[in-house]
Amino acid sequence: MLHTSAATQDELRRHNLARLVRILHNSGATTRSDLVASTGLNRSTVGVLVTELVTAGLVEEVAGPGGNVGRPSLVVRPVADSAVVTAFDVRVGVTVGAIVGLGGTTLATVESPNGPGPLTPEAAVAQIVSMAAELFNAVPDGASWVGVGVAIPGVVNIDSGLVLLAPNLQWSDVEFGAQLETAMRQEFGGCPLVHLGNDANLGAMSESVRGVARGRHNVIYLSGDVGIGGGIVLDGRILSGNGGYGGEVGHMVVRPDGRRCRCGSQGCWETEIGQEAILRAAGLDPKTSSIDEFVKRADEGDPQVLLAMDSIGDWIGIGLSNLVNTFNPDAVILGGHLGRLLPYTAAHIADRLAHSLPGVQETALVTEPGLGARSTLVGASEVAFGRLLADPLGEVESSHALVAS
Amino acid sequence: MLHTSAATQDELRRHNLARLVRILHNSGATTRSDLVASTGLNRSTVGVLVTELVTAGLVEEVAGPGGNVGRPSLVVRPVADSAVVTAFDVRVGVTVGAIVGLGGTTLATVESPNGPGPLTPEAAVAQIVSMAAELFNAVPDGASWVGVGVAIPGVVNIDSGLVLLAPNLQWSDVEFGAQLETAMRQEFGGCPLVHLGNDANLGAMSESVRGVARGRHNVIYLSGDVGIGGGIVLDGRILSGNGGYGGEVGHMVVRPDGRRCRCGSQGCWETEIGQEAILRAAGLDPKTSSIDEFVKRADEGDPQVLLAMDSIGDWIGIGLSNLVNTFNPDAVILGGHLGRLLPYTAAHIADRLAHSLPGVQETALVTEPGLGARSTLVGASEVAFGRLLADPLGEVESSHALVAS
Repeated sequence: MLHTSAATQDELRRHNLARLVRILHNSGATTRSDLVASTGLNRSTVGVLVTELVTAGLVEEVAGPGGNVGRPSLVVRPVADSAVVTAFDVRVGVTVGAIVGLGGTTLATVESPNGPGPLTPEAAVAQIVSMAAELFNAVPDGASWVGVGVAIPGVVNIDSGLVLLAPNLQWSDVEFGAQLETAMRQEFGGCPLVHLGNDANLGAMSESVRGVARGRHNVIYLSGDVGIGGGIVLDGRILSGNGGYGGEVGHMVVRPDGRRCRCGSQGCWETEIGQEAILRAAGLDPKTSSIDEFVKRADEGDPQVLLAMDSIGDWIGIGLSNLVNTFNPDAVILGGHLGRLLPYTAAHIADRLAHSLPGVQETALVTEPGLGARSTLVGASEVAFGRLLADPLGEVESSHALVAS
Repeated sequence: MLHTSAATQDELRRHNLARLVRILHNSGATTRSDLVASTGLNRSTVGVLVTELVTAGLVEEVAGPGGNVGRPSLVVRPVADSAVVTAFDVRVGVTVGAIVGLGGTTLATVESPNGPGPLTPEAAVAQIVSMAAELFNAVPDGASWVGVGVAIPGVVNIDSGLVLLAPNLQWSDVEFGAQLETAMRQEFGGCPLVHLGNDANLGAMSESVRGVARGRHNVIYLSGDVGIGGGIVLDGRILSGNGGYGGEVGHMVVRPDGRRCRCGSQGCWETEIGQEAILRAAGLDPKTSSIDEFVKRADEGDPQVLLAMDSIGDWIGIGLSNLVNTFNPDAVILGGHLGRLLPYTAAHIADRLAHSLPGVQETALVTEPGLGARSTLVGASEVAFGRLLADPLGEVESSHALVAS
C-alpha cells in the first residue's frame, strides 16, 4: 500500500531501526553488507542506524568468521542480555518459564509442577512471579525487561489479556493478564506489558520464525496435551478470527456418535486424540499411566499399544485431512504427545491424508516441531518481544531496568 | 507499512485514482465531500482526479438528491456502460452469464442449460463464447471490455487459470482459462484477462462487498449444489492457502463410517448435505427428483421430508460448528440449496452451534445470501473488475473496445 502522506523523518528512522532489529533478532549475527542487501537501505544509512543501536547497547559489532586476510569482516549481532523478556508456558501439571534475550537466546529456564489438582489463577500468578524472580538471577543488573509472554492452553483474548475458557485448567473468564501484571508490579516495582497467547498459536508462530517451518507461510501447528489446540498461520499471520478465538480445532467434531467432550459437545477430535483418549485406546488408565509409559510400551513392541497407535494414526489423519482440505498448508507440525507418537502413527496419517483433494496434499510437510517441547515457550517469548521489535529505542527508554533483588 | 522510498508522483496519482474508482464501484453515487472524507485527500486533489475520470468517461457528475435550495448538490457516479465485464457461473446442468458495468450494475443476463450429461470443457468454452456474443448486444458500441470472470465448482488455481479438479463436472487438470481466452480472441478479435474462481470463494467475496456480509471481515460462504464448496474471507481477504486450493470444506470428514464420497474419501460433509444426500434422506430418488420438489413437499407438511430436514439441519450444524470453532467468523452464509432449506433447518443448526466454544458462537450471523442465487455470478464479475480497479486509466487504455458484431 502506498501512503498518501509522506512519513516524517523520525517515523522513517524508527521504522528502519525496527527493521534492522527484527532481522538481527530473527537471524542473529549479520554482516553490514547483508543488512544493506536485505533492507534495500544504502550503506551509509545502515551505518548510522547500527551506530545508534550500538550506542543503545542493543547490538554490538564483532569480528565475524571467514574474514579475508588483512581485512577483518565485522558482523552485527544482538546483545542477548541488553533487553530480555520473561516467558511462561502454563500446562496442566507443570509451568515452564524462561528468560530470553534479544536474538532469541534463552538465558535461563525454570520448571515447576503445578499439580496435582486444578491450578487456580491465583496460584498460577504466584507461581509465575516466583519463577520470574529466580529467572532474573540469570541476567546482569541494568538489563532492560521489555515484555512478559504467557502461553495458556485455552481460548484467550489477546488484546484484553482475558482467558475466556481454558477447559483443562478449569478457568473461565479470568482477567489473567491484568492479575499477573499487578502482582509483577508489586513484587518488582514495575512490569512491562503482559501478552497472553493461546499455546498452539504461539507454537505456530515460533516454528514459523525459528523452527521447522521457517520460510513457510501457511502453517498448522497442533498442540497435543490433555487437550488438542490448533495454531494456524496464513500468509505469515496468525488466524485470529472475529474475536481472536480462531483455531480451536480440537473441538472439531470428527465422530458425531463418539464420546462426550468436556466442552459439552460429542465426538470432538480431542476425545479421540487427546492424552486420555490415547491411553484409553491401549487399555491404560489415564489416571495412573502416562504418555511416557505408552511410548515405552510401543518401543518394547507391546501389541495392544501398537494396535492403538494404528487407530490413533487414523484419527489424527482424519482430522488433519479436514484441516489440509480447508487450509492448503505447506507445513503441519504435530506438537506435544502428537509429535512423540509420529514414528508409530506416520503411516496411518499419510494414508488418511492421501484422501485429501489433489493439489493440497502434495505440499504439506507433516513433522515434529523443530524446537521440540520448547515451541510454545519460545512463541511466548516472541510475542513478549513484540513491542521492542516494533520500536526498539522507544521501548528500551520506557522499559523497566532490572536490579539485583 | 511505511515505504522507505517516496512514491513517484505518477504512482501516487494512479493509486489515488484507483482508490476513488473502487469507492465509487463499491458504493455507487457519492458526493465530492464524502470522497474527500473517505480518502483523506484534500478537496482540490479529489477535484482534479474526478475530472480525469470524467474525461476518461468512467464517471459522471450529476445533480444528486437532497441538494440545498439555490445550490444543487453534485454527486459523482460510475458510468455503468463505460467499462464492462462478462461473468459466468458454470454449474452442473446450467450456465449463467451476465454483463456487468462499472458500479456493479448488471446490464443483461443470460442462462443456458448445459446438460443432461457431463459438460465437457470444450462445450463449456463454446457455450460461454456464444453467451458472451448475446450479452454484448446489451452495451453500446465503444464500451471498454475490461475482464472476464468465470466461477467453477471446483479446485481452481487462480494464477494459472487451471481447473485442477471439478469433481461434479468430471473435469481434472483442464487449462480452462487459456482455452476460453483463445476462443474469445478468435471470436471477438481480442479478449481481456480471464479470471477463474472457485464458486464459493466468489460467493464469499461478493457477499462481503455487496451482500449481506457487507462490513463484516471474517465470513464463511457455503455453496450448496451437487457438491458443497466453501469460501472463507479472513480479515477481508480470501483464504487461499499454499497453492490457492484452500476452503474445500465439503470434503471435511464428519462421519468416518458414512458413505463413500466421489473424492475417494468416506463420510465427507458433502455426502451428508449435498443435493443427492438431501433427496435420499427423504426417500426421494436423486435422479428423478429435485430440491424444488423437496422444498415444496416440506411446505405442504410432508412428515418424511420434515423429519429429513431435522437430520439435515443436524449435519449442517455439525460441520458449521467445526468451521465456527476453527475460524471464529462474524457471518456464515448458506448459499444454493443450503439457504433454501434454512427456514426448516435453522433450529437444528442453532442447536448444534450452541455446542461451539463460547466466544465464537455469539458473533456468527447465520443467513441466506443477500444476493440470492446471483452471489457467485456477482463474485465472478468482481474478480473480472480487478485490474480496472487497480489501475483504472491504464486498464481502459489497453482494453478491448466492443463494436457491433
